[in-house]
Amino acid sequence: MSLDSLVYSTDPRHPANLICTLCRQFFHNNWCTGTGGGISIKHPETDNYFIAPSGVQKELMDPEDLFVMDSRTQEYLRVPNNLKPSACTPLFVACYQHRNAGAVIHTHSQNAVICSLLFDDEFRIANIEQIKAIPSGKVDSQTGKAIPLSFYDTLAIPIIENMAHEDQLIDSLLETFEKYPHTCAVIVRRHGIFVWGPTIDKAKIFNEAIDYLMELAVKMHQLGIPPDCAIGEEKKFITKRFE
Amino acid sequence: MSLDSLVYSTDPRHPANLICTLCRQFFHNNWCTGTGGGISIKHPETDNYFIAPSGVQKELMDPEDLFVMDSRTQEYLRVPNNLKPSACTPLFVACYQHRNAGAVIHTHSQNAVICSLLFDDEFRIANIEQIKAIPSGKVDSQTGKAIPLSFYDTLAIPIIENMAHEDQLIDSLLETFEKYPHTCAVIVRRHGIFVWGPTIDKAKIFNEAIDYLMELAVKMHQLGIPPDCAIGEEKKFITKRFE
Amino acid sequence: MSLDSLVYSTDPRHPANLICTLCRQFFHNNWCTGTGGGISIKHPETDNYFIAPSGVQKELMDPEDLFVMDSRTQEYLRVPNNLKPSACTPLFVACYQHRNAGAVIHTHSQNAVICSLLFDDEFRIANIEQIKAIPSGKVDSQTGKAIPLSFYDTLAIPIIENMAHEDQLIDSLLETFEKYPHTCAVIVRRHGIFVWGPTIDKAKIFNEAIDYLMELAVKMHQLGIPPDCAIGEEKKFITKRFE
Amino acid sequence: MSLDSLVYSTDPRHPANLICTLCRQFFHNNWCTGTGGGISIKHPETDNYFIAPSGVQKELMDPEDLFVMDSRTQEYLRVPNNLKPSACTPLFVACYQHRNAGAVIHTHSQNAVICSLLFDDEFRIANIEQIKAIPSGKVDSQTGKAIPLSFYDTLAIPIIENMAHEDQLIDSLLETFEKYPHTCAVIVRRHGIFVWGPTIDKAKIFNEAIDYLMELAVKMHQLGIPPDCAIGEEKKFITKRFE
Repeated sequence: MSLDSLVYSTDPRHPANLICTLCRQFFHNNWCTGTGGGISIKHPETDNYFIAPSGVQKELMDPEDLFVMDSRTQEYLRVPNNLKPSACTPLFVACYQHRNAGAVIHTHSQNAVICSLLFDDEFRIANIEQIKAIPSGKVDSQTGKAIPLSFYDTLAIPIIENMAHEDQLIDSLLETFEKYPHTCAVIVRRHGIFVWGPTIDKAKIFNEAIDYLMELAVKMHQLGIPPDCAIGEEKKFITKRFE
Repeated sequence: MSLDSLVYSTDPRHPANLICTLCRQFFHNNWCTGTGGGISIKHPETDNYFIAPSGVQKELMDPEDLFVMDSRTQEYLRVPNNLKPSACTPLFVACYQHRNAGAVIHTHSQNAVICSLLFDDEFRIANIEQIKAIPSGKVDSQTGKAIPLSFYDTLAIPIIENMAHEDQLIDSLLETFEKYPHTCAVIVRRHGIFVWGPTIDKAKIFNEAIDYLMELAVKMHQLGIPPDCAIGEEKKFITKRFE
Repeated sequence: MSLDSLVYSTDPRHPANLICTLCRQFFHNNWCTGTGGGISIKHPETDNYFIAPSGVQKELMDPEDLFVMDSRTQEYLRVPNNLKPSACTPLFVACYQHRNAGAVIHTHSQNAVICSLLFDDEFRIANIEQIKAIPSGKVDSQTGKAIPLSFYDTLAIPIIENMAHEDQLIDSLLETFEKYPHTCAVIVRRHGIFVWGPTIDKAKIFNEAIDYLMELAVKMHQLGIPPDCAIGEEKKFITKRFE
Repeated sequence: MSLDSLVYSTDPRHPANLICTLCRQFFHNNWCTGTGGGISIKHPETDNYFIAPSGVQKELMDPEDLFVMDSRTQEYLRVPNNLKPSACTPLFVACYQHRNAGAVIHTHSQNAVICSLLFDDEFRIANIEQIKAIPSGKVDSQTGKAIPLSFYDTLAIPIIENMAHEDQLIDSLLETFEKYPHTCAVIVRRHGIFVWGPTIDKAKIFNEAIDYLMELAVKMHQLGIPPDCAIGEEKKFITKRFE
């Protein structure tokens, strides 16, 4: 089996193809311009980790640009020519090992950066329908299925401080896993966000829903409304300009 | 006739194809990211209701993901494998039965959510050309055609409170039908909007025009101008910063 | 020559094809959603006026949806089935006849609507590079070519009041032609903008440049900077929030 | 060898193809609408300069619209019919000769124009992850590779005053090269930005990262936060509206 066979597939759902498709899509969301951001997927069949490389234009990536890592030995099964592994790799691996993730998305979302400036230790938003896309961490004891947050809940996402190098974030990330055992995301101040899920589909949905909620929170802040304010309390906060 | 024959058609205007095309388009409008939102169309020939499922990525939907319901018995003629019916289904059916709708669009539009925070019981905007895309509820007695709002009219769209589960919105929706017999839309606070019309083309046009008007209303609010202020009164409200 | 032969051409630059291509492009700019806006082109070879119809989804238009009018008799050479002529038709014709236009673009641009709320009789912006895309109305006496505005000039676009029906705007438009003989655009308050040029390429360029400038003017207003303020005076107006 | 052979290639990475592809992409970023902006690439094999022409719709450009200049004699090897050379040409050449550039990008980015209104002589932003995409000007003495800015650094981009004609900017540009020997970009007040790099890939990445940072700086300003404020100081500046 040649090493390239690890990344060549005609199946658009193969991790090597899906990472490239999603990076192209995320580029157009302003989530990974200027080579920022990245995606990693654990192959559901082999458990190998597929990881986007460092420093490439994310909308132009090809399957042959991907690193592939053995999930047991954490050794590279495939290293593309002339490319460096992503500095996020240890963070992706931590999500696989400690959170049982099936995929991890990292973006430089401006909504995440702005929320990290507006909020202290936690991004908080409450009573918005889109919150229901995020898991509560609870599991239905009968069906074994994850229970999502309810409309009346508050979504809280921890914010950690950025460091000079991405791999230095590992300690803060591991601490966050302890403190927020059910979170599916961590915001990195003045940097961006990491979002994970049991599958790449779930991780993508969580990331989209959280970005929607962060965008809404920034707009609410601009109107003077605390994003976690109680239903019916909004009008108190709106800067009255006419009447 | 196999059940799949209900959703397979080479006609791009077939409800099963149109729902997928429009969901993809609406995804790129940020109207149904993170699996939010949905569309239902009543087939003009068979009167069957075609309904997008719950919890799927709306930009990736295929015709085979759609539920099909008999409009008379309200029983499913087709249930896709491994998918759940949308919790909006009773609301879509209410629009078909009580409003004679031919299609219903549900989005998580941020403009709708923000307007639901800025306005109390009604979203109101007046004296904007785009209002003329919305029907007044009056009918021309000679031609039998719907008469649109005029430029000098005020568009008022009712806002109802959100509930834990979408199907719990049914009572409020029915009350709204009583109170606003001519409205083609209902905003759900902190959630999104439902828009319907006699055909999917009309529903899409109404939804686009209303979203344009809600977007404009938010911008007017930010400038200090009440969205329903009289023509010529705008300047009174603008925060004068220079002069 | 069948009537359809007027609109069927394999040349992408034929007015019937170009109107459809540009309407699709303008739809994605939020300039003609909800059936708003329209485009008319005078065929450079036959002088016939090609005009988008009323009330159709502008991104879905086909060449066969277009009206064609004889420029001398102003009678329709082609009327598509089941479609109504645009209420803008008399305005388009006025631009052809009194301004020697080769094409006219009408959009419901939100930047135009907001600028019509912020400004009184004229939209004004000065000392921005993009102004140089707009003609000054002066002609080089040696080359006979139109001279564009310079960076140090002020662009002034007249704003007229909206009316119940678009064809009622004709008197204001004709007055504007008298008062602003060199303008290539008129903003209609709470409605949108009309932009024309000697060719469709020029009209498109003028429309893009003006929309860019209106967008910038709204942003400058939000920062407290008058859009026509002198170079170097900006800092006086910026709301100082930190120091 | 015909002159057209200079611009016809089946290689999508050939400068003549790449300039057209990127201009189309930049048009959709609102960076070169209304014929604004431009790109020049030095062919890595021949050292010839490929330059987009003046006054054309940038999203519609073909390879045959490009000027080609001999880098040694600065004479045109190819002049397209009916097109004028870009007034930016002397500026592009200055970047090639004095900065050893491999490509130069010029846009009318609204983020650049707004930042030129908010800042005096320098655009400054600090402590944002995306800064790491920009070179510091230092070189690793062992590997010979460019060292990027660190997260804790401040990015400073000089702002020069605009002139009536683009070629008049040459003196200010040369002065800037002296004063900021390591900058990869210059903002032109009320006009746009020039960004260069050793290759077109690097120039594109720098331009994207800088535009992201300017966009973020405008948002920070709107929230009252100085874009170069120290980590942890943000909260002091946020206009407290609720509590």
